[in-house]
Amino acid sequence: MQGTSGPSVKVGIIGGSGYTGAELLRLLLFHPYVQVVSVTSRQYEGRLVTEVFPHFLKSPYEELSFESYNPEKISSECDVVFCCLPHRASFPVVKELFHLNPSLKVIDFSADFRFKNPETYEEVYGVKHEAKGLFTEAVYGLPELFREEIRGKRLVANPGCYPTSIILALYPAVRERVLDTGFPVIADSKSGVSGAGRKATVDFTFCEVNETFKAYALNGHRHGPEVAEKLSLSSFRFTPHLVPMNRGILSTVYFKSKVGLNELREIYRKVYEGEYFVRLRTTPPKTSDVAGTNFCDIYVAYDESADLAVVVSVIDNIGKGASSQAVQNMNILFNFPENTGLKLFSQWI
Amino acid sequence: MQGTSGPSVKVGIIGGSGYTGAELLRLLLFHPYVQVVSVTSRQYEGRLVTEVFPHFLKSPYEELSFESYNPEKISSECDVVFCCLPHRASFPVVKELFHLNPSLKVIDFSADFRFKNPETYEEVYGVKHEAKGLFTEAVYGLPELFREEIRGKRLVANPGCYPTSIILALYPAVRERVLDTGFPVIADSKSGVSGAGRKATVDFTFCEVNETFKAYALNGHRHGPEVAEKLSLSSFRFTPHLVPMNRGILSTVYFKSKVGLNELREIYRKVYEGEYFVRLRTTPPKTSDVAGTNFCDIYVAYDESADLAVVVSVIDNIGKGASSQAVQNMNILFNFPENTGLKLFSQWI
Amino acid sequence: MQGTSGPSVKVGIIGGSGYTGAELLRLLLFHPYVQVVSVTSRQYEGRLVTEVFPHFLKSPYEELSFESYNPEKISSECDVVFCCLPHRASFPVVKELFHLNPSLKVIDFSADFRFKNPETYEEVYGVKHEAKGLFTEAVYGLPELFREEIRGKRLVANPGCYPTSIILALYPAVRERVLDTGFPVIADSKSGVSGAGRKATVDFTFCEVNETFKAYALNGHRHGPEVAEKLSLSSFRFTPHLVPMNRGILSTVYFKSKVGLNELREIYRKVYEGEYFVRLRTTPPKTSDVAGTNFCDIYVAYDESADLAVVVSVIDNIGKGASSQAVQNMNILFNFPENTGLKLFSQWI
Amino acid sequence: MQGTSGPSVKVGIIGGSGYTGAELLRLLLFHPYVQVVSVTSRQYEGRLVTEVFPHFLKSPYEELSFESYNPEKISSECDVVFCCLPHRASFPVVKELFHLNPSLKVIDFSADFRFKNPETYEEVYGVKHEAKGLFTEAVYGLPELFREEIRGKRLVANPGCYPTSIILALYPAVRERVLDTGFPVIADSKSGVSGAGRKATVDFTFCEVNETFKAYALNGHRHGPEVAEKLSLSSFRFTPHLVPMNRGILSTVYFKSKVGLNELREIYRKVYEGEYFVRLRTTPPKTSDVAGTNFCDIYVAYDESADLAVVVSVIDNIGKGASSQAVQNMNILFNFPENTGLKLFSQWI
Repeated sequence: MQGTSGPSVKVGIIGGSGYTGAELLRLLLFHPYVQVVSVTSRQYEGRLVTEVFPHFLKSPYEELSFESYNPEKISSECDVVFCCLPHRASFPVVKELFHLNPSLKVIDFSADFRFKNPETYEEVYGVKHEAKGLFTEAVYGLPELFREEIRGKRLVANPGCYPTSIILALYPAVRERVLDTGFPVIADSKSGVSGAGRKATVDFTFCEVNETFKAYALNGHRHGPEVAEKLSLSSFRFTPHLVPMNRGILSTVYFKSKVGLNELREIYRKVYEGEYFVRLRTTPPKTSDVAGTNFCDIYVAYDESADLAVVVSVIDNIGKGASSQAVQNMNILFNFPENTGLKLFSQWI
Repeated sequence: MQGTSGPSVKVGIIGGSGYTGAELLRLLLFHPYVQVVSVTSRQYEGRLVTEVFPHFLKSPYEELSFESYNPEKISSECDVVFCCLPHRASFPVVKELFHLNPSLKVIDFSADFRFKNPETYEEVYGVKHEAKGLFTEAVYGLPELFREEIRGKRLVANPGCYPTSIILALYPAVRERVLDTGFPVIADSKSGVSGAGRKATVDFTFCEVNETFKAYALNGHRHGPEVAEKLSLSSFRFTPHLVPMNRGILSTVYFKSKVGLNELREIYRKVYEGEYFVRLRTTPPKTSDVAGTNFCDIYVAYDESADLAVVVSVIDNIGKGASSQAVQNMNILFNFPENTGLKLFSQWI
Repeated sequence: MQGTSGPSVKVGIIGGSGYTGAELLRLLLFHPYVQVVSVTSRQYEGRLVTEVFPHFLKSPYEELSFESYNPEKISSECDVVFCCLPHRASFPVVKELFHLNPSLKVIDFSADFRFKNPETYEEVYGVKHEAKGLFTEAVYGLPELFREEIRGKRLVANPGCYPTSIILALYPAVRERVLDTGFPVIADSKSGVSGAGRKATVDFTFCEVNETFKAYALNGHRHGPEVAEKLSLSSFRFTPHLVPMNRGILSTVYFKSKVGLNELREIYRKVYEGEYFVRLRTTPPKTSDVAGTNFCDIYVAYDESADLAVVVSVIDNIGKGASSQAVQNMNILFNFPENTGLKLFSQWI
Repeated sequence: MQGTSGPSVKVGIIGGSGYTGAELLRLLLFHPYVQVVSVTSRQYEGRLVTEVFPHFLKSPYEELSFESYNPEKISSECDVVFCCLPHRASFPVVKELFHLNPSLKVIDFSADFRFKNPETYEEVYGVKHEAKGLFTEAVYGLPELFREEIRGKRLVANPGCYPTSIILALYPAVRERVLDTGFPVIADSKSGVSGAGRKATVDFTFCEVNETFKAYALNGHRHGPEVAEKLSLSSFRFTPHLVPMNRGILSTVYFKSKVGLNELREIYRKVYEGEYFVRLRTTPPKTSDVAGTNFCDIYVAYDESADLAVVVSVIDNIGKGASSQAVQNMNILFNFPENTGLKLFSQWI
């Protein structure tokens, strides 16, 4: 939008008044080859984007208004649609959009197309899936693992925030078969509050979250099966926690490694060698190191006394865990260099 | 100090201008049987307590001043001394105080007397210990495990904050031998910032800590061996993390259990049946549930898919993790009911 | 409740599941002469208090359940009722309770009885008042100004949080007639988020409040007229701001003084000489100095260049700004020493 | 640095490891016409920038190291130098650099060249100034007021953070002579903690600042005279406060206006009509609306009852209050469009 040379991809955003929508709008300002032509919001329909998000005053979005969802309009005007709806709300929308415009590209933020088969989805989410035909088309949009599968697709299931941080922390060990699957793999993850979305609930009001820390979903969280499926882990434990901060996920991952520290680090180095968005760190990362960016910073440690590998990864939950990863996927779909518009670095403080 | 009936124990505090000292002063205001007669601070020597801690204006401390450390004075005036110095600074002080007054009681906040033998201490802390004669006298001041050993002693080594939260989360499983020691035990702990003490370092200034989360000491933290020794764990992994909040520790502990959820919960119930300060929870606890108190709240879960017990515990790191536990120990030493002055409940927000 | 000697006042709390109710429950644990016999909550009716507020586990409230509002029951069982409802919800309840039991005492947290006449109330709050008969009976419960008027009353209108902080900052200058009323008086106040109460709204969710600061109600806030009336100020400006913290109000008050710094300080000293809960400070106070307490800390400054008095006051908005002030009022109503159960000091951190 | 077309200005940064230096490095990544060739730090001399600021891994700064201050090198290599030193440290450095290279351009972040004459500086800062010859050359770098004076200069005194927010809030009323100077003007300002810089002091450690709010410098702050001089205010009161957040300043400014609300708003509209970086708001702004940007958002209100204008402004203290304003000044010095590299919008959360 800011740049004007090159091709121009027409972008639509469905459910654009939440945190992922706001972030998407912000990120696309850095992208030279896109133009946001439509953004929907049930809640703010008819209102200027800058009325709801006054931080966009003086931006190219000054003329843009939130629209009601109009599938005919959005499917005909757009080349790509980011669907920022929650699970169960996505699949009818995606189905409808493809019906109206089969050549549309859709990047879906929900869980509705993340699993390999609808049965797992229905079991994990307790919802009947009514767009099963699209399951086989959908690709899990974690480029570091599935880049080639993503190219040429029209439906990308953008990964969950926790799974992104955990899968990237484990992937080299799994791919290179040094993770001992005879032992449970444990992911102890900690997330900022924006992961809960922008909604009115007492549990996420300031006073209930500030100055406190908790574990939740101790008896099972839906992101557990997502990780287990993508990495084919048979024994996997995932515990999420809530950190009193806006953005960021840190996952501390424990597993039995068949190799020691040096070899393990070498494996991570090799696997992530060409990956712009993975930064192997020589010191433990902080979540703020990646806030507002698409980076995943990873630190590999090894505990001799317990004979355990300990890998720490950080992402921005609404960056690499949502909106910037979606832009990365869009770049792949449109054959742009993968970091187009994403060479962004966080504020130090 | 507030009440006046009953016996009056004369209390001295060494190193009283840090966070544990300030909390001790606050807590002792609720204790009917004590009188703070001396509080030392190298940094604030000669200044009124209320000048450094104006929140104590109108309290019984209005006349009290921080003194320089005078072993003769403090050992002769006091019945019990809380020594709030860092490790390596404590042992010469404790030695000197006992030399001057062998019947004094000392509750030491440092690591200097926590281990069973000086060799472990020297290895873990990299410091030569020069009061080894006192090692055999010292008792590890975790009343829920060592109550009977504490009675009648004159030297109590107040436990570390992380170890308190972790040991209480594991103890019933260890004591009742349902923790499978063939597998590593993992404690993933998260602490508020006050655990770093009250000192001037860039790393703990507001902007470096706020809105970020990190793991640290990934290659080993001194509190690991403390836990391993007290619970005789041969394979133990401990990872500490820093949470942007003032107070609180939450430990998420993972271990292989020989029994399932119901039996495990029943074991915890039985072991902690008479313990006032352990609250077994039916829902996952938040750190704020115990802030400012001596409680340790525990929630026991079980992950069927990974076949792992998951126990979550929360304490206030400068409460049960330091100052209020020290008061609990004092109550035992002086045969007061263990919760005297400690029937305190946190603010909801 | 904790102590057992002395008289026992039976307490009821209406609307006890919000922040002021939770704080009231906490504070009353320190009071030797009261017993909480009934606490109502529409939202949590029938549930144990400790289910909603697990931080009260092991407290005397373990047997207590939230009840639905039953005027017959509460008016017959209680000696005093704290009514923690919002404005407009209070007056019918108070009217009904007095109808059923004319000798009941009621301390009302809402604005419904704060003004001198119902007309002002109806104008400021835009609500028709239907218990006007009680207006003449009600007394504004700011003991430092109206102590004698409170004694013997049955209906106390507990002051607003902002007004408490502002009135106490201005009162000595007004009473001693050194405030020049020819110039506008300005109160620039900053409040923690708990002032907004415990309700589900997007505007007060963590991410919308954290890491940001704003002014609000710039075109007029209801607490302005409350201050102006109590101090008979003809020209008064009040601007509230929202601070990303749970508790605390700091008001910076500007006025033209007829006297200079020394004389002004002397006036404040004299006026507040016997007031336990007002602490005149020699250094600027922080809101945390009074968190969890009933203190109001005040610092008096004078700007020579602008020829303006600048007075800073801090309170805990749900302490002296709500619940602990209500307890102070109860103490007056029942002829207990005014600081009974309120000799509480904040945590340093 | 990212773009490569157009002219390339060689940039040096002195004192680049603090918060303003880090922000400058971040901002310059968006600037198409500059190249950072040298960045100094006494503390981190010889270390890679990415070692100190790992969030710049994968950025164009990967090869850059912090250097010791070498005036010959920096004055010969650079076209422009940003001097991020504290007051008193700047003037010898600036003097030396101009001595070595008279055609160098310097943007100085300190107070050393902000005043119109050295006497005011010496009085306000209590320091003898030893580069008085440069005073007449220096220009106060607030482009909205002094744009034309900045052009062609070689020494720009970058304004203080508080003064930037206050001056922009008052300027239209002063310029258009509707501010009644017979009454004191009051600026009640609130700043995030980064304003204190990146240094090790107990007062700014996390626990001392978090969950609390305070006023400071109640008896006079150096930024007061800076505002008074630039706006020729004879009676001006400035009170700074500390907000528990990283970034942002909000100033609430009170003055007697000779005109009412509508006329006043119209004046602000006209004066700021062509100013990209001033956004007149129709709703009160939050500091987060401008975090990470060079915007100053302003809301104009009017209190009928007190007959006072109330203007609220927000800036990012290390953006428009420091580093991005410095880039704006650089753009003017080099005749780039003023918002080059500064068309940045904050994150919503």
